[in-house]
Amino acid sequence: MAIQSALEELSNLLGQRLSRSKSDLDQHGASETHFPLTPPDAVAYPETAEEVSEIVKICARHGCPVVGWGAGTSLEGQAQAFSGGISVDFRNMNKILRLSPEDMDVAVQPGITREELNTELRATGLFFPVDPGANASIGGMASTRASGTTAVRYGTMRDNVLGLQVVLADGRIIRTGTRARKSSAGYDLTAMFVGAEGTLGLITELTLRLRGQPEAVTAAVCAFERIEDAVSAVIDTIQMGIPMARIEFVDAATASAFNAYSGSEMPECPHLMVEFHGSEQGVAEQAETFGEIVADHGGKGFEWATKPEDRTALWTMRHHAHWAVMASKPGARSIVTDICVPISRLAEAVNETRADIEASPITGPILGHVGDGNFHSILLFDPTKPEEEHAAEDLAHRMVERALALGGTATGEHGIGVGKLKYMEAEHGDAWDVMGQVKRALDPQNIMNPGKMVRGN
Amino acid sequence: MAIQSALEELSNLLGQRLSRSKSDLDQHGASETHFPLTPPDAVAYPETAEEVSEIVKICARHGCPVVGWGAGTSLEGQAQAFSGGISVDFRNMNKILRLSPEDMDVAVQPGITREELNTELRATGLFFPVDPGANASIGGMASTRASGTTAVRYGTMRDNVLGLQVVLADGRIIRTGTRARKSSAGYDLTAMFVGAEGTLGLITELTLRLRGQPEAVTAAVCAFERIEDAVSAVIDTIQMGIPMARIEFVDAATASAFNAYSGSEMPECPHLMVEFHGSEQGVAEQAETFGEIVADHGGKGFEWATKPEDRTALWTMRHHAHWAVMASKPGARSIVTDICVPISRLAEAVNETRADIEASPITGPILGHVGDGNFHSILLFDPTKPEEEHAAEDLAHRMVERALALGGTATGEHGIGVGKLKYMEAEHGDAWDVMGQVKRALDPQNIMNPGKMVRGN
Repeated sequence: MAIQSALEELSNLLGQRLSRSKSDLDQHGASETHFPLTPPDAVAYPETAEEVSEIVKICARHGCPVVGWGAGTSLEGQAQAFSGGISVDFRNMNKILRLSPEDMDVAVQPGITREELNTELRATGLFFPVDPGANASIGGMASTRASGTTAVRYGTMRDNVLGLQVVLADGRIIRTGTRARKSSAGYDLTAMFVGAEGTLGLITELTLRLRGQPEAVTAAVCAFERIEDAVSAVIDTIQMGIPMARIEFVDAATASAFNAYSGSEMPECPHLMVEFHGSEQGVAEQAETFGEIVADHGGKGFEWATKPEDRTALWTMRHHAHWAVMASKPGARSIVTDICVPISRLAEAVNETRADIEASPITGPILGHVGDGNFHSILLFDPTKPEEEHAAEDLAHRMVERALALGGTATGEHGIGVGKLKYMEAEHGDAWDVMGQVKRALDPQNIMNPGKMVRGN
Repeated sequence: MAIQSALEELSNLLGQRLSRSKSDLDQHGASETHFPLTPPDAVAYPETAEEVSEIVKICARHGCPVVGWGAGTSLEGQAQAFSGGISVDFRNMNKILRLSPEDMDVAVQPGITREELNTELRATGLFFPVDPGANASIGGMASTRASGTTAVRYGTMRDNVLGLQVVLADGRIIRTGTRARKSSAGYDLTAMFVGAEGTLGLITELTLRLRGQPEAVTAAVCAFERIEDAVSAVIDTIQMGIPMARIEFVDAATASAFNAYSGSEMPECPHLMVEFHGSEQGVAEQAETFGEIVADHGGKGFEWATKPEDRTALWTMRHHAHWAVMASKPGARSIVTDICVPISRLAEAVNETRADIEASPITGPILGHVGDGNFHSILLFDPTKPEEEHAAEDLAHRMVERALALGGTATGEHGIGVGKLKYMEAEHGDAWDVMGQVKRALDPQNIMNPGKMVRGN
């Protein structure tokens, strides 16, 4: 069998760094959400781009699938080997290759995690701002075009990856972008590989834009009676041009889960959690204006967290939302939705979703990055009750339909993987076929993460 | 002949809106810089995307080249029909199709110019920030991935185009992107068409991100003794996280040209021209911090322009730099260079370029968007003296070599056209071949702006 012959050659190339142990295969066949276990045939642990290139060349000769693996935190099954093949785990490629404080950029290998990178950067006064919550690998974050709580200020991976080194489906190693801050020299290949989920090539190096650690940071949480009041406050804040660093929405059910999980004492109603970055004076000014906007919309119970430990507690609580919500229904599994709509339609989208969930037999707290129009529902179901799982699937489906009808997208930041493949045609129409043309041009054998992203793949 | 048969069908489709008059052909065969006149076979003036689609379908049947035309302000011959064919002029497709102040976005046709758009937006409190100086069309700005003086704050066209409607080489009309602020749904086709210079399709509609007009604006000009002092001040300003809206460098020769052309009285030495946008208090704080940085680097002669008319005068002078420099050598033609380097190498790049020009028989003032590491030299030559033209060509060539050696790009914002095609291999290596693979996948007949962007095209 093709895969077997590839495995022999790969084993010669990598020795102990090609694993077929059951624990390795199971770990690389699992996902954080509801997809079934789909182990690869082997896991490779390369140490250099050249080794990745050799792996891909061997797989290309044998028509063997190649699937990248970072930290395994993706939510749509992006890194699962649904057609078998080789899982390429980048854990050994986790170094900082170059750091230029003057240019405020850094070159890293794909396996470094967001937290590792920021720990290394701490002494420089710089940081990498994209924060999806999970301690994802930077290569994985680029591949899924991740974003998170800070995108409203600092953008997504699209905006923060300046250049890449990529191993293509035929083993060629290319570089995209330069170290200049901008360029008009040709097609934007960097943007083409960011968000491609490994279907066009494997990222082996990334140049990232860094930001200066703000002189002052302040965060706050405040409560609203109605969802639409919270959303209106967000719209006003954006229109005033207040440069929020984060602005997060949590609904009453999420606040309740926080209270149970983190021992907080939030009133069980919708909340906004915000953070401002800037100079002392700038942050004070932003906070004051925001306070006025919130008051205009009936917001109350303002709590400011100016001490670092209070802010850490606040954002840790937010980042642990998934676990807090999971803990609210022991034994449950979840479908995590990820729609993003124009901000003018956000209140409508959240309210309709809330009503839809309330009319269903299951629970599903709502929370999200409302400054971008992006929100999630964590739809909880008892895996022993098929009617609950169906209800969750139906709710998730209607959320996407609602998002598309409102001019939005099926996924703001989690990506397509296998979970959202069925919505590509509805969202993109003929443009989805163009994606297929690009895919076939760069990977005619369809060995790079097959079964994902494009039609008939 | 193929083109003749296409012309007949196009004439049936468009009637008077297909022109073969000499003045039309000459106008669409000319460029603002040193490229020779290369008229198309006809100029089409479509009014709808469907008409553009019909034009492209006819051209596809006959293998006839199709070249988009916006305002004719590109600087590398992007819109010239070097292989003949049809110039598709978007002047009749210049409407605002939808404006959503709440979402801070607008949908426009490609023929609207930057100034027309901002005039229409004035009453809304919003503006479109990308400002290349010339009153370019929005479609042309997207196609060349234009930027200009405000990119340091607001980004380039890459960052400000949210979605597109595009007519492909086979006439299909697709939409890329959604109205959501971010998405992880598939390949970033928007980014693929932005900067593609019409070689992958013709843009027929753009959704643009808008910004709030700042509450307060202040601008200033200040003088430095040495280029490296000015550049060091820029680096410090960036590292302090001061959100400059513009930061422009002009050298002594440019200041001298300004004085002669605009009647200004700038000392003939390097200058920075800056602008800050924000709240009254924020702008005051930024200006104060910037003043301290400038003083640290020996800058002097600070002049603040807080009144709108003073700022308009300042930026009009900057935007007219090309004409001021051209007027400094009557009868001259120019090669305008456009390199962009990592900011840490900027002083080196500018100084070496300055020395190189001074050692040559020609003049070439230097100016640029130094916050991005991007600068231009307007190399002036007497077209009757071949030795001057050769000197200009050699200088331009060495500037690109210098940029690439420093990790930069041959073009920060003017694009490739025909002027920079010869540098694509040096800048991109094998990645240039990947661009060719994408091009052939989407335009196998090579009818979309042939002769541009990719190898052997």
